[in-house]
Amino acid sequence: MAHNTQVLIAAVPDGPLAPEHFRIQETATPVCADGQVLCRTLAVTIGAGQRAGLQGSASYAGAPRAGVVMGGTGVARVEESHVAGLTPGDVVVGPTGWQLLSVHKASALRKVPAGTDPALHLGVLGTNGLTAYFGLLVVGAPKPGATVVVSAAAGSVGHIVGQIAKRTGCRVVGVVGSDAKCRILVDELGFDVALNYKDGDFRAAFKDATPNCIDVYFDNTGGDILGSALFRMNAHGRIVCCGAVSQYDTARPTGSPRGIPGLLVNNRVRMEGFLVFDYADRYDEARSEMMRWIDRGELVPRVTEYSGLQSAPEAFIHLLNGDTVGTTIVRVS
Amino acid sequence: MAHNTQVLIAAVPDGPLAPEHFRIQETATPVCADGQVLCRTLAVTIGAGQRAGLQGSASYAGAPRAGVVMGGTGVARVEESHVAGLTPGDVVVGPTGWQLLSVHKASALRKVPAGTDPALHLGVLGTNGLTAYFGLLVVGAPKPGATVVVSAAAGSVGHIVGQIAKRTGCRVVGVVGSDAKCRILVDELGFDVALNYKDGDFRAAFKDATPNCIDVYFDNTGGDILGSALFRMNAHGRIVCCGAVSQYDTARPTGSPRGIPGLLVNNRVRMEGFLVFDYADRYDEARSEMMRWIDRGELVPRVTEYSGLQSAPEAFIHLLNGDTVGTTIVRVS
Repeated sequence: MAHNTQVLIAAVPDGPLAPEHFRIQETATPVCADGQVLCRTLAVTIGAGQRAGLQGSASYAGAPRAGVVMGGTGVARVEESHVAGLTPGDVVVGPTGWQLLSVHKASALRKVPAGTDPALHLGVLGTNGLTAYFGLLVVGAPKPGATVVVSAAAGSVGHIVGQIAKRTGCRVVGVVGSDAKCRILVDELGFDVALNYKDGDFRAAFKDATPNCIDVYFDNTGGDILGSALFRMNAHGRIVCCGAVSQYDTARPTGSPRGIPGLLVNNRVRMEGFLVFDYADRYDEARSEMMRWIDRGELVPRVTEYSGLQSAPEAFIHLLNGDTVGTTIVRVS
Repeated sequence: MAHNTQVLIAAVPDGPLAPEHFRIQETATPVCADGQVLCRTLAVTIGAGQRAGLQGSASYAGAPRAGVVMGGTGVARVEESHVAGLTPGDVVVGPTGWQLLSVHKASALRKVPAGTDPALHLGVLGTNGLTAYFGLLVVGAPKPGATVVVSAAAGSVGHIVGQIAKRTGCRVVGVVGSDAKCRILVDELGFDVALNYKDGDFRAAFKDATPNCIDVYFDNTGGDILGSALFRMNAHGRIVCCGAVSQYDTARPTGSPRGIPGLLVNNRVRMEGFLVFDYADRYDEARSEMMRWIDRGELVPRVTEYSGLQSAPEAFIHLLNGDTVGTTIVRVS
């Protein structure tokens, strides 16, 4: 008889994430009641924001606790259905968490075409790509010719942000944590400049890379990179506050950047936090547009893949260490 | 023969402002050349933002230096004119600085009705009132029923912000530095609640005063009050960054408030710096509307007055110590 495999939170981390914060559990197939759908996970995506979710009440994702299945979005195949509109073999996106089998109400699931790669639905057409799309185009609103800087620029959101900014006609500067990622951004994804923030001369290089200062800074990191950007903003510039990955995987986040609110006043800078869920009524429009860009070769989604649920903790740790490029996917079945 | 009296910057302050940072100088009447207007100052206004101007390059006002006349906006009477459109006896607003006599190009001056009190043109119809108007209504954009919090709420900008928010139909909470100011805000200016940030239980009182959290925070102070507000913002709340008076009169500004950018992301908060000069093409409209409110008794401008140029340094120090209410005016002649 079928059984379930689950990755549980073994302990809420109080410092950098490590393998011992998770454990694998084999358990029975969940019961699929009336009004529910039993799903078999095909792949899950892991994002840096999930580390914020492990910090408890500080996050919008709610407080985590030991002993529960690690949450997350996955693509799954319907195995058994007691709802109208979904039948076995259908492929859906939903909050599968890090487990092989899960049951859901139909309202939690979104049906997607069965033939396409799960990585597409979890990456550029999923929360990450939509975050890049609305964060850059609506909150950041760059005009052609503007200078756009994006941090964590090789990440699931950042690498899409930079490419959308390029096709908008902007000069795009990416900030990443390794020279290898710099090369990918410039050689493969069309960024104008990529900088490694770990370089000793980063501040000087950052200044050189933004001779006309910054019109839109898309911030995925917070911390020191945000601090550097604040000093380079043009009048009426926008800072899109998307994430703060520099602050997640630690028990001691660094302080806020210097110069707030003075620098915002002097340059009339708008600094705006956003969550993509507020744009849910426009997801379809954004997905259609990004699919057109992909078909034309104007948008190249990148994925780093892992295989098997047991590799999910390792994938998460690699992601937080900056060892992955694009969307991080764990193929499950 | 007429002579001029000037207040010079004697030394750029490196810490709290003191009388020795200024000195009085008697000098000759300036020569009024072709294309210029000789003005006799009737009154000048002093604002906290001028202290930022004494901090050098950190401010939008440019770098200060010892030996020059202290800058500032005044109302003046034309004594001699070599330009078309202005004649002796006309009353103008312009960058007189802290001096009895000054010469200007016509383009620097704005003619105002001769019969009205200079305090009106320097206060609610001047930069302070316009800052309150555009900062609150355009950048903050509160809806009726919203909770609006304003810091330095008894100041030249703050006391106008609160009254405009009240007539917009908002619940208005003012934060000030003395119990006497609290009473003025509530008893005379219609604020719903006023809090003294120097009270030991300020944080608890702040929470109690904002049971529905904050929709618009109009920040004149930065520092700890901004920090408290950041933790009380509603989703999609706006923080209007107008000034940072807590950071001006010191050699060691406090750090930025905690939780940036995390708190902005979680609650999708917009934090926006602004300068009123960007709204210059709408000044007339704003002045007309505020005059209507004053005539109807819906807006009550407050002024603290000093007499004589020699009292200007003292007035400035009182202002920075929080000892003045409303617009601070020095009557000159």
